[in-house]
Amino acid sequence: MPRPRRSEKTREALLQTGIEQLSLNGYHGTGIKQILDIVNVPKGSFYNYFSSKEAFVAEVLKEYSEQALARLDDYVDTSTEAPLDKIKTIYNFMLKEFSNQNCQQGCLIGSIAAEIGNQSELCQTAMLESVSLWKLRVNQLIADAQLKGQVRNDLSAEQITSVFWAAWEGSLLKMKMEGSVDSAKEVLSLMLEHLLLPPFPQKNINQ
Amino acid sequence: MPRPRRSEKTREALLQTGIEQLSLNGYHGTGIKQILDIVNVPKGSFYNYFSSKEAFVAEVLKEYSEQALARLDDYVDTSTEAPLDKIKTIYNFMLKEFSNQNCQQGCLIGSIAAEIGNQSELCQTAMLESVSLWKLRVNQLIADAQLKGQVRNDLSAEQITSVFWAAWEGSLLKMKMEGSVDSAKEVLSLMLEHLLLPPFPQKNINQ
Repeated sequence: MPRPRRSEKTREALLQTGIEQLSLNGYHGTGIKQILDIVNVPKGSFYNYFSSKEAFVAEVLKEYSEQALARLDDYVDTSTEAPLDKIKTIYNFMLKEFSNQNCQQGCLIGSIAAEIGNQSELCQTAMLESVSLWKLRVNQLIADAQLKGQVRNDLSAEQITSVFWAAWEGSLLKMKMEGSVDSAKEVLSLMLEHLLLPPFPQKNINQ
Repeated sequence: MPRPRRSEKTREALLQTGIEQLSLNGYHGTGIKQILDIVNVPKGSFYNYFSSKEAFVAEVLKEYSEQALARLDDYVDTSTEAPLDKIKTIYNFMLKEFSNQNCQQGCLIGSIAAEIGNQSELCQTAMLESVSLWKLRVNQLIADAQLKGQVRNDLSAEQITSVFWAAWEGSLLKMKMEGSVDSAKEVLSLMLEHLLLPPFPQKNINQ
């Protein structure tokens, strides 16, 4: 029997289903068979598309990252909001999306990192690349916001981006655990409306 | 054949091995057989100790949390350091421990939350309880640090604890991904030596 030709559409469907299933069930909790059943692809043809589960997951992470970056870039390029407001819009948009999915999908990159760490070099490369490209964008917005006096400038944009990224990812763990966006929303607001702002005269809560 | 008697020592060994294996391989990546093989316990006797894998993991999360809280309490009760310095000591101690384990174990509660979210009610209860008890301790230290003027007081101790917890947990995802504590160390220092401090006159980096 001739080897079936690869279809770009099938490949895309496998990756898209991979994003959904891996977000929900993690690396070890997602079986290739489960993905193939959803896309309705015979088991044998998986290896026409990907050399292994590991290679597949690395491609899923890349696809997830590209989709997120494309949406981010589209918004940033067309928005006329001030830089800090752009950041607020982007992150509140993501929280709204997460709440539509019962708060169980969160950030795929963070979830896979929590589960498999650096155990797969292919996935590690895809995750580090994704975080680095995302932070580059946020970094630019933070630097713009610093120039406009919207964000404190006693730290570099890179430093602020690092701590903001960490707080965001950590808050998504709480979101998944609780099945609610409330505490992630609180952390976002504490960062963007308090900790990252230029200093104001301090109120004394003990008086 | 009479049902074998449960041994407290075996139960403890199963839980301790559970902590190690779940930290490394996650919920779905850890098989009961693997745990039993390491502890050298026959498969049939697992159910003398735990009613299911889910119940086992929930007990592992509780045990992990109790050990961490006991160590924290021991240190806090005996240390004469100022409150903010206590926080620095506690978190730097954890980072040092993580680096001894190739940065692949991180926080078990955060890792399991990232992987299974709220899908298991038993585990969810154990995770929420653990986070809540940990935050209670940190909250007290933050409140003490605010009273001593070591931490900003324009936000409540609860708010600062929430954002600090999130930044810490997020930084551990980066640690696992990179296989290095460097960026977690950076985030810790940005929080404890900059963002959480009372405001200082701002330097302008653009001048």
